[in-house]
Amino acid sequence: MGVVINCDMGEGFGLYRCGDDEGIMPHIHIANVACGFHASDPVVMRRTVRLAAEHGVAVGAHPSFPDLQGFGRREMVMGRDELSACLLYQIGALKAFLDVAGLPLNHIKPHGALYGAATRHEHVAHAIADAAETYGVPVLGMAGTLHETVYRERGLPFMAEYYVDLDYDASGKLIITREHDAKDPAEAARRAVRVMTEGKATAIDGSDVPMRCDCVCVHSDTPGAVELARAVNEALRPYFA
Amino acid sequence: MGVVINCDMGEGFGLYRCGDDEGIMPHIHIANVACGFHASDPVVMRRTVRLAAEHGVAVGAHPSFPDLQGFGRREMVMGRDELSACLLYQIGALKAFLDVAGLPLNHIKPHGALYGAATRHEHVAHAIADAAETYGVPVLGMAGTLHETVYRERGLPFMAEYYVDLDYDASGKLIITREHDAKDPAEAARRAVRVMTEGKATAIDGSDVPMRCDCVCVHSDTPGAVELARAVNEALRPYFA
Amino acid sequence: MGVVINCDMGEGFGLYRCGDDEGIMPHIHIANVACGFHASDPVVMRRTVRLAAEHGVAVGAHPSFPDLQGFGRREMVMGRDELSACLLYQIGALKAFLDVAGLPLNHIKPHGALYGAATRHEHVAHAIADAAETYGVPVLGMAGTLHETVYRERGLPFMAEYYVDLDYDASGKLIITREHDAKDPAEAARRAVRVMTEGKATAIDGSDVPMRCDCVCVHSDTPGAVELARAVNEALRPYFA
Amino acid sequence: MGVVINCDMGEGFGLYRCGDDEGIMPHIHIANVACGFHASDPVVMRRTVRLAAEHGVAVGAHPSFPDLQGFGRREMVMGRDELSACLLYQIGALKAFLDVAGLPLNHIKPHGALYGAATRHEHVAHAIADAAETYGVPVLGMAGTLHETVYRERGLPFMAEYYVDLDYDASGKLIITREHDAKDPAEAARRAVRVMTEGKATAIDGSDVPMRCDCVCVHSDTPGAVELARAVNEALRPYFA
Repeated sequence: MGVVINCDMGEGFGLYRCGDDEGIMPHIHIANVACGFHASDPVVMRRTVRLAAEHGVAVGAHPSFPDLQGFGRREMVMGRDELSACLLYQIGALKAFLDVAGLPLNHIKPHGALYGAATRHEHVAHAIADAAETYGVPVLGMAGTLHETVYRERGLPFMAEYYVDLDYDASGKLIITREHDAKDPAEAARRAVRVMTEGKATAIDGSDVPMRCDCVCVHSDTPGAVELARAVNEALRPYFA
Repeated sequence: MGVVINCDMGEGFGLYRCGDDEGIMPHIHIANVACGFHASDPVVMRRTVRLAAEHGVAVGAHPSFPDLQGFGRREMVMGRDELSACLLYQIGALKAFLDVAGLPLNHIKPHGALYGAATRHEHVAHAIADAAETYGVPVLGMAGTLHETVYRERGLPFMAEYYVDLDYDASGKLIITREHDAKDPAEAARRAVRVMTEGKATAIDGSDVPMRCDCVCVHSDTPGAVELARAVNEALRPYFA
Repeated sequence: MGVVINCDMGEGFGLYRCGDDEGIMPHIHIANVACGFHASDPVVMRRTVRLAAEHGVAVGAHPSFPDLQGFGRREMVMGRDELSACLLYQIGALKAFLDVAGLPLNHIKPHGALYGAATRHEHVAHAIADAAETYGVPVLGMAGTLHETVYRERGLPFMAEYYVDLDYDASGKLIITREHDAKDPAEAARRAVRVMTEGKATAIDGSDVPMRCDCVCVHSDTPGAVELARAVNEALRPYFA
Repeated sequence: MGVVINCDMGEGFGLYRCGDDEGIMPHIHIANVACGFHASDPVVMRRTVRLAAEHGVAVGAHPSFPDLQGFGRREMVMGRDELSACLLYQIGALKAFLDVAGLPLNHIKPHGALYGAATRHEHVAHAIADAAETYGVPVLGMAGTLHETVYRERGLPFMAEYYVDLDYDASGKLIITREHDAKDPAEAARRAVRVMTEGKATAIDGSDVPMRCDCVCVHSDTPGAVELARAVNEALRPYFA
């Protein structure tokens, strides 16, 4: 029951690049691969799945609200049924490339505004859980939120995430930003280890907040992301499964 | 090795409707379900797969060039690799809804301009064949074209289609139109039977053209489509498997 | 300062049709023409502007959140700046076809979820007002809401709408539905006249709600829309400018 | 009748960046601003128009086939009427931001596959000319092609372009690539001056090809683009209007 490191991967689109996937892949265990609704396209998805396969990284789906222009960071109001259909579509599309590569679907991690909406709206949490139940895979999300409660009630697996490269407010709420600032790798590594050993994180105001962590998330589009991922990976090795 | 009747299904989009899927489903054996690139969306796809399942109709993917506005009837220049990725994406998305419904993927039928491009461009035919090979399913297409040649050379299954509600020119080439005109059901039924018994179709200029037929296609957006499908179904019963 | 009748027009997309624009155009004064973000495309926009020009109908822009699949009926969270840019884009696109037809931009009417969001979120109301100020045209919206307040404070023209084919709740709030039910033309005409003469509408629970009305809205996708528009037009003639 | 330097600008999309617009803007006279169909979005368009206005750079529209994923580099088959509507839509959208900035539309330059298609298909050249005629602005394109012939026959202004950072084959045809290689700024400057003084360019095989040039194009996504633009600008100063 050790910790794993996950990272959003394959978030380029057409000619546009996003993050150094090749650099980060050696330092993570599981990749959340974008499915074309907030980023990515079929060519990028195929390339990303191949890259993960080469590094022995397990692949999960990283579905989003349909919002390429907003990179999935703008919340949309969708009903449970249309949202679960929207998620199945994206997960199925990713599975095509997993099938070609001979990889199973490992997990689901909702992206951006969808990730946030799942912590506040029960029907959003259920829509994601509906898709996860179909595939029998765990979902990554924020511990202690409505999102987790829904999975516990339905008896579905939920993995609590801790973000080493984002800040939390004093109530333990993640502060989501459109663009990510650089973080010090050593500091990120210390934060990660503290969560594993003490079950606590330091909020942006310096106070302590309790934090459970089944998996640590790093972002590929943070400046210095490769060094940060490497440092966190090294620091967490005693805690890997 | 009897004949089957196929029809493009699930070609609505959002609030827009296209064709009387409920009316036609009882009269066909296999449905080519749109995958969201020329028509359809996740909600329509789920609904269409359910409808097919209720009628015991086998479901194939009906992928397209990415062209919602043009309903996939505008040819696009895409390389073999990016096109096969584009097709895998669509087929995978459809498979998600098939998985939920407990149905296998039955076949692939390229849509509109992609269907036509496969008869003229070897790399397009190969891109479709690449996707079909991945899933081990047959492809529906025009007999006697480059499309079929590619499958024969690769040893992949190909089903020759005959369109009872479209016209052919004197060289046996299908005349594809943006909107479909009404056809007389009895005449369509006679045309279908003639192809099965004589291996010949009547071209638009009245001449005879040789025609092989593993499956007969009807369109749901032709005016009077339900009556036409019923008439063709009744006339072809002696030739079903 | 008489009343005018407006209708959303040009809400087809590609091969998909929506509403009988040709049938309704003779019965309205101003058309709200979709701009491609919830419905329509460049070909439909050009055709719709030409149709309006032939009938002497003034044309306004009917911009939306970017949501073709949801027909603009799903609210999205967008900041004031990105939303006003999104609206300018759509209005400018429509103006191209107005320029060709020699017509001025007459007004702006936000569509669907954007229309509703403007009544609840100040930054949404301001974003629409920003676009309207750029073009110096009035905006159509719901009287007595935050949307109108923002215009009054900024000294910008606002036209209060009354919907003859939708229901209101007892607080005077419009009940927006994804699909529109048929309404009795004579009843709609009576409702319209009552608002003009008494300044009151009947809510869905039978109670009276105060209602101001600078323009009456009819929908083209309501069953029986042409007859309804004709009846409302005839009944309101004494109140036209 | 001097030469001007043009560059495609504003080709980012959402969070994705493309090229150093801020760095290049000081070195060009006219900017071809993407209109959202191959790149860009309303926010990027507004920012790009403002940037051009700050540098006194004239702005033209850079419309494309509708192909965000392919960056407009995949040819699509569209009829003259639907293509001209598609172009008017994009140009109108850009004009909204020009209106806000108080700038006129300066020219039109078709993008990518559309630029190439105009040199080979008469109906494509006419569709672009139709849009240009509406706005009374010149079009930038390849000299000596069908594209130019159509404008000459219709009496519409056409500006011949020379690309200092792309190669030409021995027949004088531009070699269009998906990604651009770095070029030596001094060499690019020499190439530009040679075209102005001798009316000749060096093809990729070393042979000379005749070349007319009303405007020189530099690309912002070529590595070292800013230095290249600066060098070409300095070298061409004697030839500016």
